[in-house]
Amino acid sequence: MSRRLLLGAFLFHPGGSHVSGWRHESAEPHRHVDIDYYAGFAQTAERGVFDTIFLADGLYFWDRFASGVDHYGQTRLEPLTLLSALAVRTSRIGLAATVSTSYNEPYHVARALASLDHISRGRAAWNLVTSRYDEEARNFGGDAHLDHALRYERGAEFVRVVQQLWDSWADDAILADRESGLFADASRLYTPDHRGDHFTVRGPLNVTRPPQGYPVLFQAGGSAAGQDLAAATADAVFARALPIDAARAFYAGLKARVVAAGREADDVSILPSLRPVVAETDAAARRLAEEILASTPDAIIVEDVAHSIGQPLSADPDAPIDFAPSVDIANESQSPNRRVARLVAGERLTPRELYAEEFWESVAVGSPTAIADEIEERFATRAADGFIVQALTQPLGFEQFVDLVVPELQRRGLTRTAYEETTLRERLGIARPARGVWAEPAGALA
Amino acid sequence: MSRRLLLGAFLFHPGGSHVSGWRHESAEPHRHVDIDYYAGFAQTAERGVFDTIFLADGLYFWDRFASGVDHYGQTRLEPLTLLSALAVRTSRIGLAATVSTSYNEPYHVARALASLDHISRGRAAWNLVTSRYDEEARNFGGDAHLDHALRYERGAEFVRVVQQLWDSWADDAILADRESGLFADASRLYTPDHRGDHFTVRGPLNVTRPPQGYPVLFQAGGSAAGQDLAAATADAVFARALPIDAARAFYAGLKARVVAAGREADDVSILPSLRPVVAETDAAARRLAEEILASTPDAIIVEDVAHSIGQPLSADPDAPIDFAPSVDIANESQSPNRRVARLVAGERLTPRELYAEEFWESVAVGSPTAIADEIEERFATRAADGFIVQALTQPLGFEQFVDLVVPELQRRGLTRTAYEETTLRERLGIARPARGVWAEPAGALA
Repeated sequence: MSRRLLLGAFLFHPGGSHVSGWRHESAEPHRHVDIDYYAGFAQTAERGVFDTIFLADGLYFWDRFASGVDHYGQTRLEPLTLLSALAVRTSRIGLAATVSTSYNEPYHVARALASLDHISRGRAAWNLVTSRYDEEARNFGGDAHLDHALRYERGAEFVRVVQQLWDSWADDAILADRESGLFADASRLYTPDHRGDHFTVRGPLNVTRPPQGYPVLFQAGGSAAGQDLAAATADAVFARALPIDAARAFYAGLKARVVAAGREADDVSILPSLRPVVAETDAAARRLAEEILASTPDAIIVEDVAHSIGQPLSADPDAPIDFAPSVDIANESQSPNRRVARLVAGERLTPRELYAEEFWESVAVGSPTAIADEIEERFATRAADGFIVQALTQPLGFEQFVDLVVPELQRRGLTRTAYEETTLRERLGIARPARGVWAEPAGALA
Repeated sequence: MSRRLLLGAFLFHPGGSHVSGWRHESAEPHRHVDIDYYAGFAQTAERGVFDTIFLADGLYFWDRFASGVDHYGQTRLEPLTLLSALAVRTSRIGLAATVSTSYNEPYHVARALASLDHISRGRAAWNLVTSRYDEEARNFGGDAHLDHALRYERGAEFVRVVQQLWDSWADDAILADRESGLFADASRLYTPDHRGDHFTVRGPLNVTRPPQGYPVLFQAGGSAAGQDLAAATADAVFARALPIDAARAFYAGLKARVVAAGREADDVSILPSLRPVVAETDAAARRLAEEILASTPDAIIVEDVAHSIGQPLSADPDAPIDFAPSVDIANESQSPNRRVARLVAGERLTPRELYAEEFWESVAVGSPTAIADEIEERFATRAADGFIVQALTQPLGFEQFVDLVVPELQRRGLTRTAYEETTLRERLGIARPARGVWAEPAGALA
């Protein structure tokens, strides 16, 4: 089978992936809790024959700084309820929900994702995150988020419990035989009775096995612990956008971990973030990106930089920073923080410079041909198996990608022009997992 | 405003409210995880101009006895995901999800219900339960369910936290002003910072205030603690089916508690269970009910009775019971257990007799006129403000109620022939709550 570029359509802030994307003239910021707004997004992605939509999430409202309340468009709908509604407003696209393993219970998560997989007839995916903000802990009885190592331990056990619960019922367990009155074949039911370090969950699940066996598992951890968890369990990894050489190195390293974990390299797709700004010409795209950057309120620039370097800053985005960090950055970051590295190296930069630099490094700006060239090169040279597309503005920025770039990718034979498979798992070319062999006697669930 | 009979359409076991309803010739037991099956149910209810559908739930698979696995049709979809999908497959009917306060976190529940309320444009309801089975505890790290008093204390605090989270945003808090870049008015945001006996939840919620202010709150507790919680907080109570005199006494008692809690008697609707078996004539309905009862496997009869009286029994449903209970029945029961009372009184009854007796006491069997007469009498004499209709078989039993009984209720002017209001709260005639005054200074949120 020839390799096919995978595409995911990202949404976190409903107005787009740039924090002030909601200010764009095409934006519809009063519709951020309107199901039709999200249906429009999903239907645009389906029009572009995307493999999946991908809803990021956080279990908090980001109010650490005043700009979070004042300027961010971060009120939104909860992913599992939203995706269940979108399941019946779409027909073929995957539906990936971000769900934390740190502030949830495996039984609830197994049920909700199994239900979403049934409702969508095999299109559910789980983007597993471990939650890294104190704001999240404070909504769940804690003061600070879990230690990095501990939350990955918990995450690994969480996945194992959820998969056991999904394995409760063999596919042929439901008899529904009117004559005998037998609804289920008890010999085809598995009760996990899991007792681990973090969870005690008896089961079985009260939902039959998901159409995909297990909904597709995405992970995003960039740390060593995150990569190991992904290598052992994930079907796809949502990776940071990196310069192409670094992206290739990350790709090779993660695939090596996958093989070291006893799996095939192709079992895990690596999908970096792609933040496209597309227009008919490179120059027009550049102007558009400049406009989007310029729409960022000064308070966001200062406070975003202050947060990422762990240091309060004055209100002036053009005042050079005297670096003296005050919080534990390592535990909040999922990967090395370049801003800190530069400041540590002694460079005297302003918040606006640091903010703009990261903005320009994070975006892919250009004509449809230029964007397609970059995508093709990264795909062909194994920097990526596909991309999670984060349009900076919604709905227009994403519609432009679908209408301008996707046709070019299709012309090049990189992506499909129509859906063929039924389930997301089939679409990604990964087998439906057999029920696991969790319990003695070995092979009992085969 | 004249008083109008309220109607809710109940679903727990997808095959119907009789445990072997899935064996009926009209049943579709292989469709219990099929969204179109549930959409059909919701659309039937909407055709009958029901006020709400009402999804019961349990956080476990009932396998205490072998008959639970062998004979019950109890695999199903999770209520919040299911109702979110049904929100876009229906247009006017309420959507009530059963959600436990014992094995959930207020932040998750506030988000999901607020999302469902936005997705449905003001049709969400929460049936608050406290979970009473050990099976549920064992799926969430425990061994036995919480003590009765403790779980109602926790439930009361849970509601308070969830309502505070729903009050995070004033209705006019979202500015979305492109010019100024102000997305929200921080002065219209409330951060609960709740620190109670059971929960520490900072907030604010990352979903704007639900269209209904608070989704409609149902409760089902029959105990004194349950009734007090309902009287203080609920909009509607799902009550047990009782003989009419007992139902009137329950109704009067609960309304008195509502008034004692400082509310208007009409603020809380009392909706007993109604298990109708309808056919063209009384005799045909009786035969139908007999068939449904006769479809119950012997193992269910024995084990259902064994469970309710707290004592293992032999496999023979016709062997008289020597009563000697072995478990703490009081903590599992939400209301007095008549079977136990009779056995304690020294009667020597068989499991089949006890099972059949409860069956016949629980059902309303007859022609459309007879059922409508019973409904009308109970409504007129204040034994009920309406009913939660639990058809014994699905989909046919419920369709018969909608097609035969509802038109008779409409002819009598008891129920509507078309939807008028937009939100469920409006339909129930209860005001959209103002934001609560939770914090100092008093009145800050008014």
